[in-house]
Amino acid sequence: MKIVLAYSGGLDTSVLVSWLKEHYNAEIITFAADVGQEEELDGLAEKAKATGASAHYTVDLVEEFARDFIFPMMRANAIYEGQYMLGTSIARPLIAKAHVEIAEREGADAVAHGATGKGNDQVRFELGYAALAPKLEIISPWRMEVFRKAFPGRTEMIAYCRENNIDVEASASKPYSMDRNLLHISYEAGILEDTWFDPTTDDNKDMYKLTTAPEDAPDEAQYIELDFERGDCVAIDGVAMNPAQVMKHLNAVAGKHGVGRVDIVENRFVGMKSRGVYETPGGTILLQAHRNIETLTMDRELAHLRDSLIPRYAELVYNGFWYAPEREALQALIDDSQKSVTGTVRLKLYKGNVTTVGRKSPLSLYDEDIASMEGVDSDYNPDDASGFIRLNALRLRRRALAQGGPEIASESKLSRE
Amino acid sequence: MKIVLAYSGGLDTSVLVSWLKEHYNAEIITFAADVGQEEELDGLAEKAKATGASAHYTVDLVEEFARDFIFPMMRANAIYEGQYMLGTSIARPLIAKAHVEIAEREGADAVAHGATGKGNDQVRFELGYAALAPKLEIISPWRMEVFRKAFPGRTEMIAYCRENNIDVEASASKPYSMDRNLLHISYEAGILEDTWFDPTTDDNKDMYKLTTAPEDAPDEAQYIELDFERGDCVAIDGVAMNPAQVMKHLNAVAGKHGVGRVDIVENRFVGMKSRGVYETPGGTILLQAHRNIETLTMDRELAHLRDSLIPRYAELVYNGFWYAPEREALQALIDDSQKSVTGTVRLKLYKGNVTTVGRKSPLSLYDEDIASMEGVDSDYNPDDASGFIRLNALRLRRRALAQGGPEIASESKLSRE
Amino acid sequence: MKIVLAYSGGLDTSVLVSWLKEHYNAEIITFAADVGQEEELDGLAEKAKATGASAHYTVDLVEEFARDFIFPMMRANAIYEGQYMLGTSIARPLIAKAHVEIAEREGADAVAHGATGKGNDQVRFELGYAALAPKLEIISPWRMEVFRKAFPGRTEMIAYCRENNIDVEASASKPYSMDRNLLHISYEAGILEDTWFDPTTDDNKDMYKLTTAPEDAPDEAQYIELDFERGDCVAIDGVAMNPAQVMKHLNAVAGKHGVGRVDIVENRFVGMKSRGVYETPGGTILLQAHRNIETLTMDRELAHLRDSLIPRYAELVYNGFWYAPEREALQALIDDSQKSVTGTVRLKLYKGNVTTVGRKSPLSLYDEDIASMEGVDSDYNPDDASGFIRLNALRLRRRALAQGGPEIASESKLSRE
Amino acid sequence: MKIVLAYSGGLDTSVLVSWLKEHYNAEIITFAADVGQEEELDGLAEKAKATGASAHYTVDLVEEFARDFIFPMMRANAIYEGQYMLGTSIARPLIAKAHVEIAEREGADAVAHGATGKGNDQVRFELGYAALAPKLEIISPWRMEVFRKAFPGRTEMIAYCRENNIDVEASASKPYSMDRNLLHISYEAGILEDTWFDPTTDDNKDMYKLTTAPEDAPDEAQYIELDFERGDCVAIDGVAMNPAQVMKHLNAVAGKHGVGRVDIVENRFVGMKSRGVYETPGGTILLQAHRNIETLTMDRELAHLRDSLIPRYAELVYNGFWYAPEREALQALIDDSQKSVTGTVRLKLYKGNVTTVGRKSPLSLYDEDIASMEGVDSDYNPDDASGFIRLNALRLRRRALAQGGPEIASESKLSRE
Repeated sequence: MKIVLAYSGGLDTSVLVSWLKEHYNAEIITFAADVGQEEELDGLAEKAKATGASAHYTVDLVEEFARDFIFPMMRANAIYEGQYMLGTSIARPLIAKAHVEIAEREGADAVAHGATGKGNDQVRFELGYAALAPKLEIISPWRMEVFRKAFPGRTEMIAYCRENNIDVEASASKPYSMDRNLLHISYEAGILEDTWFDPTTDDNKDMYKLTTAPEDAPDEAQYIELDFERGDCVAIDGVAMNPAQVMKHLNAVAGKHGVGRVDIVENRFVGMKSRGVYETPGGTILLQAHRNIETLTMDRELAHLRDSLIPRYAELVYNGFWYAPEREALQALIDDSQKSVTGTVRLKLYKGNVTTVGRKSPLSLYDEDIASMEGVDSDYNPDDASGFIRLNALRLRRRALAQGGPEIASESKLSRE
Repeated sequence: MKIVLAYSGGLDTSVLVSWLKEHYNAEIITFAADVGQEEELDGLAEKAKATGASAHYTVDLVEEFARDFIFPMMRANAIYEGQYMLGTSIARPLIAKAHVEIAEREGADAVAHGATGKGNDQVRFELGYAALAPKLEIISPWRMEVFRKAFPGRTEMIAYCRENNIDVEASASKPYSMDRNLLHISYEAGILEDTWFDPTTDDNKDMYKLTTAPEDAPDEAQYIELDFERGDCVAIDGVAMNPAQVMKHLNAVAGKHGVGRVDIVENRFVGMKSRGVYETPGGTILLQAHRNIETLTMDRELAHLRDSLIPRYAELVYNGFWYAPEREALQALIDDSQKSVTGTVRLKLYKGNVTTVGRKSPLSLYDEDIASMEGVDSDYNPDDASGFIRLNALRLRRRALAQGGPEIASESKLSRE
Repeated sequence: MKIVLAYSGGLDTSVLVSWLKEHYNAEIITFAADVGQEEELDGLAEKAKATGASAHYTVDLVEEFARDFIFPMMRANAIYEGQYMLGTSIARPLIAKAHVEIAEREGADAVAHGATGKGNDQVRFELGYAALAPKLEIISPWRMEVFRKAFPGRTEMIAYCRENNIDVEASASKPYSMDRNLLHISYEAGILEDTWFDPTTDDNKDMYKLTTAPEDAPDEAQYIELDFERGDCVAIDGVAMNPAQVMKHLNAVAGKHGVGRVDIVENRFVGMKSRGVYETPGGTILLQAHRNIETLTMDRELAHLRDSLIPRYAELVYNGFWYAPEREALQALIDDSQKSVTGTVRLKLYKGNVTTVGRKSPLSLYDEDIASMEGVDSDYNPDDASGFIRLNALRLRRRALAQGGPEIASESKLSRE
Repeated sequence: MKIVLAYSGGLDTSVLVSWLKEHYNAEIITFAADVGQEEELDGLAEKAKATGASAHYTVDLVEEFARDFIFPMMRANAIYEGQYMLGTSIARPLIAKAHVEIAEREGADAVAHGATGKGNDQVRFELGYAALAPKLEIISPWRMEVFRKAFPGRTEMIAYCRENNIDVEASASKPYSMDRNLLHISYEAGILEDTWFDPTTDDNKDMYKLTTAPEDAPDEAQYIELDFERGDCVAIDGVAMNPAQVMKHLNAVAGKHGVGRVDIVENRFVGMKSRGVYETPGGTILLQAHRNIETLTMDRELAHLRDSLIPRYAELVYNGFWYAPEREALQALIDDSQKSVTGTVRLKLYKGNVTTVGRKSPLSLYDEDIASMEGVDSDYNPDDASGFIRLNALRLRRRALAQGGPEIASESKLSRE
């Protein structure tokens, strides 16, 4: 049997290499995806092999992540439950895809991952595997009772590594768990499980890695201009950039100004609520800029239609249905909606605030002549509003006459002078 | 003929009293609504009568505005086009309702208003009149060519007042127009029609009235706790308040900390895009607190369903369809969704930022035992996730086998080590 | 241990009484729900006790089924996937509710049912149990490997009954399975699994129980009039009836005229497609009548909003989420929408066809004067349409000028004469 | 001035040629679109010129109508308000497009049409003109008071023709108005304005032109098989056909069997309700066949998403927003959803009934092994349903424990035996 294991070189997945090899009497191939987590990936091949793997892949997915995953999602203005920018969610299908590609190349029988049995990531990985390689076996040790019994806690893992001569740095465990990539860092579990715990106090605030606290950000505001073409950011302050460069540049600028922190309770797909704290510096700027270039260039009804579908799109991404036909169909609609989303947005960054202060476009639907309350010589004739209002009111009038009109909460108190 | 005119005592409506009286040979009753605009309303009766009105009503709508309009809308988390908190929109149906109540009491033949022929307010007023008093005549002078020709600009109005001995203060005209009430101030038109114009610069920033600039806000963060019952804020920092008190208190606190400014391009119902700058200090806090108490107390699927309907609800409020059956039906759904939205949210205010830092509730659906990645003795069995994932994946697997699976943008580049 | 078992007296559940008693060393209470299936329910208590049950409940749910389940669903015009009238789905939550009520009264530890492990009914029952009695244990033998191994087929069940002196009639097994209640009969499985199999041919058509084949229905059409109040049918041909009477009466009339057959492939919640044939005679008439009284009495925008939510509502009913907060919130919206749905619909029944041929209402929103193309003296002024159209066209014009207009598939071929 | 007039050769548009020429002192070009109305189009050029037109275009749009308008709409399963198949609506944008193309080729200043000021067609035409030729002037005589005063009724028109030597056949006016094309005939106005009037009685039934009455249809059922590729019907009973051929063939077969009549009250975009009777024989078959090939080949979630958008899509078509960006974006989603909608549907036609009796596809997502209740050796493990149900129930259980569970209408009456 041959298993391809998603591998980070940390305690958990080091144990997994060895345990899977033994439990299944299998050949283990390890795989590490670079999605911009800025962790040490050098030396992973050696480490994996020392732990028992027969081969290792480190795959650089950074540009693909930005171009084929983050950017399409940004074109949708996707936010889960109004607050979460889907930083972890959007990386999972890409990792699953590379995982499966390796399994196919290796002729492996199974893929294995170290995601827990309570989280969303197990679902996102496995829906990806199922959609892309429907016959591949999936091994999820944290959902195997034999594994959970063998490793009830960190202590047993460290002991197991010692026994098996697995070299793991006995790094101090953090009081929360983290996930980082090009789009964000998430923090959850541990001390954050208390929903009344405040991670922004002086005692706690060194948790944050990507953003300065607003209190510590520069006293001087910074202006930034983003150019969009068909819904994608293609240049910043006049400098053309590819998607990954855009993300890196924005992360740096936004992080410096304390932009992009949120602290929420969210609903997991597996059925429970959980608390997460997120830093999404570049994404926060990008989303706001994108939404505001749309205000100038996207038709009203198109925008409203699209907006009504975003909760659904975001839910699909969150739940792991990236490779599902309904996500693809929504993407077709979204991409069609971006045909004219071209122009420039000017933003002001200051101590956690991102303020839109200007927008312009060669394809602008904004017509200063028509918009102006002063204009008399434009194409808009105020008299047209009379017919417009009367026909819109027709059904309300008819209802009032035939059915007695709306229910009124209370009468206003009138006094005649 | 008897006409009830919405009256502010300013140049425009002073002209209207006189012009309507003459043009229609009508008796004019004036009406001023107090919706928290904090303008001088004393002396309006005298002024109106001096200008030719036969009677005047000043109606205090502040508490009704907060309780029956702002609060129901907040229960919906309504935002128009993702950015506008509907401050002007939500006041219009209430003003229309009081207007119509006076017309009925007075046995008037018509209602008249001074809204322009290009804006949303004419629609909002007149849809309100139509729904509540379907047979009442509506007079909208700015959509009458005879009126527009008589008053092509401010100069002609001032001249008209002089000729007719109408006392108006020759206040300097502002380079933009404003609308204020308990929920917000809006700024539009004039210099703001240039969508690249930045109103936050030192030269321009004295436009803002309700909020300190983030740059000038206190260096010390302030914490605030809001208690909710069934979706409504009922106390702040432990002090019980009625809806109007909540709004006033939050406006003061948020304004001090520079919270609640937005600068957007929006789509008017009458068909064109326009640019608006808004200050909604208290509303911004209230919305965020409400959304975050919901995260703890509202079921996932209920929240997602509700979220999918908010663009539509907000559109209805924006367009003036408050007294429409579809708004009432949505409100029934929204109010039903708030049955368990009870608890406390803790927020941190700092230089324009509102950060949620804590939430708790006696009806919390968050279960620390189940949410915990560590928990083993809870009601949640990780093995259940296996079946859950497999049945969710069933259709994706079948699709891959029968129809060839999803389209993949590109293959990742793999290198074996 | 004490278990309440859903019991029909047939082969499967007779086996279950005995097997559960033995396997769990438990006391078994049986329960049969009368939801209008018109099966023999007399003598069930004796039979159950003879098989080992210590007590039995037969519960008459017919009127409750019609009033609290069928009628609220009809107010929604609910149809699953455009074709299935949810006859089985809507009965399940009621059966679960009665099941749980008995378990509570008996102080039982668990509820058990005989639904298979591949179908929707297991989900519907168990979501009902979970919502109503969250701590009650659920036993689903067909999802227990030990049970499936003991009873791989019908033969082993019959043998088991013989061994255990369980008296079951060795009725010939049908080549499909059926479920009947006041709303419908469903047929599935067996020969129907071939999606090309035609059950309407002369050889096969005796499968149908509730409806005459259209070919065999009377040659004379029959007219029928239904009176609605607030969305519910309250009288037929002038005779007042309660909900269960309405259903029975309509089933008889519709069945006689061959109304209400459908043959579909549907998507089960557990992930696969299945084929079902349904007879819903009375429901088919009721739905059409309801929809058509709405056309006269329901506001356009309210109707469109409601219609957009029906796929979701129907999906919730189908999937078993009756006791879920999102279904309740949708019901609040739907019930609010029915406030004025009052009036009379006239239908013509003929050989499978139901044709609406008349509708009238004291609350009608239809205004013959305004609708008439001839009318000149009505409240509608054709000139208003000019402004209405121009403002609706404004954004399309602007788009054409600024962004180049819509994409055109092809140019028409013109020839000048 | 040069005006292109939509022209039928009937009384109304004959008057218009002459009146427009005189009123505007303009050159008139007439235009007739062949969209399958099967009226006499030969000799129109001569007739138009005799009436004063300087040139005439008859444009054959039949194949374009079927291919670029009917078929894309059928891919969406579009039905307005659950009952109307949009036969008139879908032809209007195509006629507007050809109209505008002629105007551009002729260098005309304006387009004119003879649609009334109360109907939907004026809107559909004019939104089409606006989107395709934003600067072209639009003349709608029925919304001009001078025209309406000149021609208050048919009598004045006939008199005008006599005076002006316009040759019109004094055909007896029908007691309703009709619109026919390749997809349908509509009947409205006149005697149909009484919503209690039954047009199917022996006295009235000769109104219907495309369909035999079910009562008069053959006593023998007919079977028909439609082949679909990517959502479009490409062959009938094994014979390949282009879209227009498909429509003509289906119209003949369905018409013979009395299929495709509906009688409804609908909501016009201009604000009032109206009553319409429609014959859509071929379309009715096509829609049912399409929906049923989808049941076999379209993923569940994709189908549900698409279904939720159809009311909106149908509304757009009905209201005349074919050339609107939101319709285009929805079409992108719909077309994407049709990628695998390939296969064959078998239907039975009998006296007004269309019954699906078989469906098969090389891309079928239906898996007989998995669907079978008997199957044990398939990929589906019933035990997976346990985890699936438990995680789906998790939030319902938590709600019951924390918030008290759902509201129950009433308790069932239990009696223990």
